[in-house]
Amino acid sequence: MLPQGYTIRKLELGDYEPYVETLRVLTTVGDIPLDKFKDVFAHWEKLSDTYMPRVITNENGIVVATGMLLVERKIIHECGSVGHIEDISVAKSEQGKGLGISMIKELSGVAKEVGCYKVILDCSPHNVGFYEKCGYKNDGSEMCLRL
Amino acid sequence: MLPQGYTIRKLELGDYEPYVETLRVLTTVGDIPLDKFKDVFAHWEKLSDTYMPRVITNENGIVVATGMLLVERKIIHECGSVGHIEDISVAKSEQGKGLGISMIKELSGVAKEVGCYKVILDCSPHNVGFYEKCGYKNDGSEMCLRL
Ligand SMILES: CC(C)(COP(=O)(O)OP(=O)(O)OC[C@H]1O[C@@H](n2cnc3c(N)ncnc32)[C@H](O)[C@@H]1OP(=O)(O)O)[C@@H](O)C(=O)NCCC(=O)NCCS
Ligand SMILES: CC(C)(COP(=O)(O)OP(=O)(O)OC[C@H]1O[C@@H](n2cnc3c(N)ncnc32)[C@H](O)[C@@H]1OP(=O)(O)O)[C@@H](O)C(=O)NCCC(=O)NCCS
Repeated sequence: MLPQGYTIRKLELGDYEPYVETLRVLTTVGDIPLDKFKDVFAHWEKLSDTYMPRVITNENGIVVATGMLLVERKIIHECGSVGHIEDISVAKSEQGKGLGISMIKELSGVAKEVGCYKVILDCSPHNVGFYEKCGYKNDGSEMCLRL
Repeated sequence: MLPQGYTIRKLELGDYEPYVETLRVLTTVGDIPLDKFKDVFAHWEKLSDTYMPRVITNENGIVVATGMLLVERKIIHECGSVGHIEDISVAKSEQGKGLGISMIKELSGVAKEVGCYKVILDCSPHNVGFYEKCGYKNDGSEMCLRL
């Protein structure tokens, strides 16, 4: 349940500044000029069956939480699709109000609607408890190679 | 290093039968009629900047190992891209010949070429040692929701 006045919806081009600011809570973002943002946004729009970015806005209509569902089509599991949840971030001042869990439930619901047989995501050990509250279970290890 | 006569290359439509058979080593695949395979293959071809499926063929030109690199474009890390390795499978009779490590090195190399800042994958605990031999390090937990 979102707090009064808050909305969850698709990312829009006009969300540029607060979207980028909200992502800074998660990790290094760096300098993102508008034209670079537009370029990635256009790529996501073109591949709209694959990239499903969502935001939560506050009572002023400003983005305060982000999330991405990436839908991957496979051959295994009778040509099944898998949803990947990526880049979940809630603005510092908005944490602890249930926005994180609302975002995960929304993205999981979209994944179900488009026919995914599972949704997966990677997280650090200190966030496992949060995802367990969202109904997720540990299912393996994330391995990484930095390039 | 691949054994004599083995080749690593892009997946082709003609690989249909041995490709599907090789995936059965990994998990449940089910019944995959040719038209369903063609449909997924066409989706991957259309999104060829996103889906980069590779195979290893033996001295008879038959697929004996599979691997997928999924390239995700992000806003974080200066609009960076992340490679996701998926569906690594080596036919039972071909395991232990270095095909798995060759596939991972190939996909990691492709990810580097296309500018990814990292490559990630999820695996079960008993395969962690294999990915460590490929240069990967544990970087978190995979969380999963079955739909
Ligand atoms: C992790 C994060 C997404 C959680 O969002 P949030 O809006 O603050 O969390 P919510 O208010 O929806 O919390 C839902 C429940 O999870 C709990 N919870 C929140 N963070 C938790 C954590 N790290 N560990 C365990 N439980 C946690 C809350 O206490 C709440 O429990 P309750 O329902 O019993 O009260 C947010 O804090 C965040 O953006 N952190 C920084 C970026 C980040 O780490 N992103 C995730 C990358 S994997
Ligand atoms: C796991 C798998 C991909 C490995 O492929 P492979 O071709 O048999 O492995 P390689 O011959 O390339 O092995 C490379 C090295 O890793 C080691 N290795 C292989 N599997 C290992 C494992 N599960 N744990 C630890 N080390 C392992 C090998 O001994 C070898 O070491 P060496 O270079 O010191 O001799 C293959 O066994 C397989 O397809 N398994 C079933 C499907 C599966 O689990 N896929 C992975 C999903 S995450």
